[in-house]
Amino acid sequence: MTFRMIAAGTSLLALAAPVAADEGMWLPSQMAEVAAQMKAAGAQVPPEQLADLTKAPMNAIASLGGCSASFVSPEGLVVSNHHCVYGSIQYNSKPGQDYLTDGFLAKTKAEEVPAAPGTRIFVIEALRNVTADMLKGVTTKLTGRQRFDRMDANRKGLIAACEKQPNRRCDVRSYFGGERYFLQQQLEIKDVRLVYAPAGGIGNFGGETDNWQWPRHTGDFGFYRAYVGPDGSSAAYSKDNVPYQPKSWLTIAKEGLKDGDFVMLAGFPGNTNRWRMAAETKSVFADRYPLNQKMLSDYSDLVNKLTAGNQAAEIKYANSVRGADNTKKNLLGQMSGADAIRLIETKEAEETAFRTWLAADPKRQATYGPALAQLDALIAESNKRAVNDIKLGQMGRAQLLSAASTLYRWAKERAKPDAQREAGFQDRDRTPRTEGLKQIERRFDAMVDRKIMEWALEHYRSVPAGERNDVLLAKLDQIGLDKLYAETKLTDTATRLAWLDKTPAEFEASTDPFIQLAVAAYPYSQQRLDEDKENDGKLNAASRAVMEARMAWTREQGKPVYPDANSSLRITWGHVTGRKQDGVTWSAFTTAEGMAAKHTGKGEFDAPDKAIELVKARDYGNYVAPELGTLPVNYLSTVDITGGNSGSATLNAKGELVGLAFDGTLDGVISDWRFNPAINRTIHVDHRYMLWVMEKVDGATNLLKEMGVK
Amino acid sequence: MTFRMIAAGTSLLALAAPVAADEGMWLPSQMAEVAAQMKAAGAQVPPEQLADLTKAPMNAIASLGGCSASFVSPEGLVVSNHHCVYGSIQYNSKPGQDYLTDGFLAKTKAEEVPAAPGTRIFVIEALRNVTADMLKGVTTKLTGRQRFDRMDANRKGLIAACEKQPNRRCDVRSYFGGERYFLQQQLEIKDVRLVYAPAGGIGNFGGETDNWQWPRHTGDFGFYRAYVGPDGSSAAYSKDNVPYQPKSWLTIAKEGLKDGDFVMLAGFPGNTNRWRMAAETKSVFADRYPLNQKMLSDYSDLVNKLTAGNQAAEIKYANSVRGADNTKKNLLGQMSGADAIRLIETKEAEETAFRTWLAADPKRQATYGPALAQLDALIAESNKRAVNDIKLGQMGRAQLLSAASTLYRWAKERAKPDAQREAGFQDRDRTPRTEGLKQIERRFDAMVDRKIMEWALEHYRSVPAGERNDVLLAKLDQIGLDKLYAETKLTDTATRLAWLDKTPAEFEASTDPFIQLAVAAYPYSQQRLDEDKENDGKLNAASRAVMEARMAWTREQGKPVYPDANSSLRITWGHVTGRKQDGVTWSAFTTAEGMAAKHTGKGEFDAPDKAIELVKARDYGNYVAPELGTLPVNYLSTVDITGGNSGSATLNAKGELVGLAFDGTLDGVISDWRFNPAINRTIHVDHRYMLWVMEKVDGATNLLKEMGVK
Repeated sequence: MTFRMIAAGTSLLALAAPVAADEGMWLPSQMAEVAAQMKAAGAQVPPEQLADLTKAPMNAIASLGGCSASFVSPEGLVVSNHHCVYGSIQYNSKPGQDYLTDGFLAKTKAEEVPAAPGTRIFVIEALRNVTADMLKGVTTKLTGRQRFDRMDANRKGLIAACEKQPNRRCDVRSYFGGERYFLQQQLEIKDVRLVYAPAGGIGNFGGETDNWQWPRHTGDFGFYRAYVGPDGSSAAYSKDNVPYQPKSWLTIAKEGLKDGDFVMLAGFPGNTNRWRMAAETKSVFADRYPLNQKMLSDYSDLVNKLTAGNQAAEIKYANSVRGADNTKKNLLGQMSGADAIRLIETKEAEETAFRTWLAADPKRQATYGPALAQLDALIAESNKRAVNDIKLGQMGRAQLLSAASTLYRWAKERAKPDAQREAGFQDRDRTPRTEGLKQIERRFDAMVDRKIMEWALEHYRSVPAGERNDVLLAKLDQIGLDKLYAETKLTDTATRLAWLDKTPAEFEASTDPFIQLAVAAYPYSQQRLDEDKENDGKLNAASRAVMEARMAWTREQGKPVYPDANSSLRITWGHVTGRKQDGVTWSAFTTAEGMAAKHTGKGEFDAPDKAIELVKARDYGNYVAPELGTLPVNYLSTVDITGGNSGSATLNAKGELVGLAFDGTLDGVISDWRFNPAINRTIHVDHRYMLWVMEKVDGATNLLKEMGVK
Repeated sequence: MTFRMIAAGTSLLALAAPVAADEGMWLPSQMAEVAAQMKAAGAQVPPEQLADLTKAPMNAIASLGGCSASFVSPEGLVVSNHHCVYGSIQYNSKPGQDYLTDGFLAKTKAEEVPAAPGTRIFVIEALRNVTADMLKGVTTKLTGRQRFDRMDANRKGLIAACEKQPNRRCDVRSYFGGERYFLQQQLEIKDVRLVYAPAGGIGNFGGETDNWQWPRHTGDFGFYRAYVGPDGSSAAYSKDNVPYQPKSWLTIAKEGLKDGDFVMLAGFPGNTNRWRMAAETKSVFADRYPLNQKMLSDYSDLVNKLTAGNQAAEIKYANSVRGADNTKKNLLGQMSGADAIRLIETKEAEETAFRTWLAADPKRQATYGPALAQLDALIAESNKRAVNDIKLGQMGRAQLLSAASTLYRWAKERAKPDAQREAGFQDRDRTPRTEGLKQIERRFDAMVDRKIMEWALEHYRSVPAGERNDVLLAKLDQIGLDKLYAETKLTDTATRLAWLDKTPAEFEASTDPFIQLAVAAYPYSQQRLDEDKENDGKLNAASRAVMEARMAWTREQGKPVYPDANSSLRITWGHVTGRKQDGVTWSAFTTAEGMAAKHTGKGEFDAPDKAIELVKARDYGNYVAPELGTLPVNYLSTVDITGGNSGSATLNAKGELVGLAFDGTLDGVISDWRFNPAINRTIHVDHRYMLWVMEKVDGATNLLKEMGVK
């Protein structure tokens, strides 16, 4: 459940890092550059072929937004991780129909159920350099705000043009700290259905105890199906819709992997920080992560306490608590990992070397020195704001306040022409907004929400006056929490959705206390937004210049560069391999017997009886790994991934599916800041285990047939 | 810091378990019985020699009470674990003189400092079967209380006779559930001094993070010296005292161990429960451990919060918090271990087999059936009381209330002839009582104590009326906590100690609010004590009979039996060996390079700079393990130990010192209930690492010379 994307940090800074063996989250367009290296590592698919997103296997790769996925049949069957389809399993569960525990299998297409509202499958179609378009009209004379607005308009223009094509979602992201921009075009599939998820005792076997750990025995996989209108175009759910026919789909490998084999994967890694400046890194590890970790821990404890013994509420908040726990564990791992690799000291030493190099040449100093000084100042300021922002941010966990604020902002933005609206508040965002507002009904409990708000308020009030929204607090004191929750009508889904079409004046005249609160909060939020834009613009200018220098410095050292992860499509490769440390050796594979040995029949180690019986009988069908003499469950590799890569199909040298990436180890999560080939390992579920569960445990023969396996 | 003894459970029941390879905590008197097995395993010392406590190496074995230890020089030098001498390091530390962090080394005897008050070295002299004496006058006609009193009197008589010899401490413990009794005689050394403890970054390297874990890199060792009066007799601290001359001392092995080698150790394992009845086991794991674990966790959180930023208070409570954390981790490990090995189901199945066997023979049924039914009923009752007792027991953490109650009970008992007083309240107990009362000054902070009392009271009040001491609560409400802490004089050590000589009437007339509270609490406590005695007597009769049957049943299966651990001297042996599980293999040794790789320079992984420099320079002197090509740090073995074995000298086949046992792994602590040779591993510090730290890091050449090493 690990490599789901965790949102973090400043999006304008996506930086580059020097390369080491098996390190690198490569752009498809960089394939030619690294082809020799990849072939030497064992790739049989010509690497150049991977640069072409219109050809197999790349056109079988998809995104779920936060997770990666791939097509595995001509009828739109999509495989990803169990934890990536978890929200949809949860959404379809209720007391007495517990798919989270029991699993779910549609034996026919008619039995498939709609995924959670807002679920999308994005099919990658293009990734195009648009740097020149993004910088149109951008000069050094502009203020921060002017630069921001200019680039924002350019970005919106590019996106709008791209999305004139029907059913496309397009984004423009920054690479190499604003040194380069790419437009990513994806086909958006809106009718997504849950097809199959194994029991929780397979898909989440080991639970939180085993999360981020090795040895691992988790069958972390699940299936969606993409549906489109009868005419083949993307459409919202309708029972008349038909399965989508992808341009290609992955072949399921007939043979499994063995220790040492080449593997690669394509997916959408969310965010890495491998070349953040040292001062920012220090602030993150000294202040932000520890505070964030504490907040997540408190939030999770609070919700667990509030929902204890109330199964309906537990189900509603399961996903949110799971997310908080996962992030918390990740942060703890990053913090101890940073200590272990002496991240701060190393970064400071490297940066000193870079600064020395820069200062040594008067011309370089003249060209980049002012930008570097500017960047240093901006980072110092941003470090100061960051801790307060974490405290303020907890208010976002109160779902009704969040919904009301979004709705009022939506109304305010709707008064402007579409192109001038804020990102996230344009016509293109109406559907996801609607779905987000609708989904609250399945993820909200008024008593729990109120207590969360109380808790968040405590932190909010601890921020010094002037740095928080005091108008909001005054209004809140005036209304009072009792009245807020007693009188609001926003708990009703139809009422919530109806606000999407109201005018600002209607909000301002409303007696709904949450709406009143949102109206009161608005001016200060806008003020903060304006300040942020000014800062972002300045940061972009400084960062872009400094990155030029840093890339030049890296090139001087003869090292290739790849951009930091930013949720766009990347290719990474490595080898199946265990790990050796003092006193302990990890083998590359775990086995079904190991799963059975961990099985206790309760809690997090409760595999289905059927699975245990099959293991006892050694009934492994065709799925035995010859070298192991038994059924493999999970394996380790050196592929370089991060959150967002969850669900990525793992491909063998020929480009066939041999498993899914789903996790790393806790001492390896520091790879978001620095990759260490001795430590970093990705954990994959072996496709032989997936197929065995499907065939022997769950009888999903319909899907095996569809995938060409049986 | 793990295998320090953790008090647990009913002391009258110490049971027997069937044997497996390397399993068994053997009585020295059983050596003849297992000699062949031990020789086959690799012992070169004749096992029969180990039965003789007056000969080497057994007369070099000592106890610290809760930890094991051994003599390593003719001048009374004693080695044990760092965590076993931790209390004395703490006792001698204060702000600005932080021996916990920096370590402590007396370069001459004059520089040695007194150990914490109450510290004792007990030299084992005899272990003698006294079953007949214990059962004198005991008949089946007696009530529970009569039986208890009779055996209590017999025990006190045996102890008093034994302690007529000067400076001896004697105890009589139950073996095989009261089927057998042994008297253990130890020489008590009262002047104990701290000689040497490495820095916390060696002795506690890895801290809580690595506690109960493998791979491990902890230099968990420290040294005391035993002092006696100039005439050679045991005496309290005096600067005129001289080093004690033990009858023998361990030879430090010239060669280290390698994978597969035979090892053995003698020590004082505290408590195991390998043959508790299934119903009791179930109650422990379903109710008692989870509640206890929560209490420990809450206590530790509370004290940490209260002492944060107050270094003096932190030092005072460090030992207590450390103990709570350690026990908590142990309980969590036992709980998940019980799930992992399906302890309850297995025990229930075994017990069903035993009951079937018993019922199958009418004569057996007639002889043992009634006792078994009686035992079942007693266990059911005791299970009911157990949970409330855990809640009530937290009040014991409030040190002033605890002291006042002890003092009043001391006065009441002192009114009786010595032989009729309760165990723990006889003249022989005066010194430990005095030291316990004195020690409060170093381990007490009024603000913290008060908050602990408030916390404990909350739980106390949650026990149903009638099952708690309501008179105590009423008195407490009348006095109020403010007054209690404002007006008491018990915070003054001299005042506390003076109460040891006062009469009950003086207590009853006292205006000290804590004394008033103790007086109010007394009658109910006595009533509970009376009930407990009645139950204990009944339990003893039933358990003794049932154990006869269980031992017979075990014999029928051809298995030898050894008694459950009960803090008396035991011998255990096994082999140096790693562990293999699905996906992960532990090697038998860790190395200095592994320690350096874990070193972060802060927190729990902060080895002294000197140690890191030496590792970088590979300056390992004569301490390299040839097979490893480097300096070993810790190793694993299969010896069967538990809490109380901490500090036990690990001996090679020839009986020479090759290290110290100090920990196990968390998934192995369930061995207290059932030993599993595939899982259970003891962690030892290699003597080569100890000697290297002494010679190269700390320059403890005086000690090396004394031990005959240099």
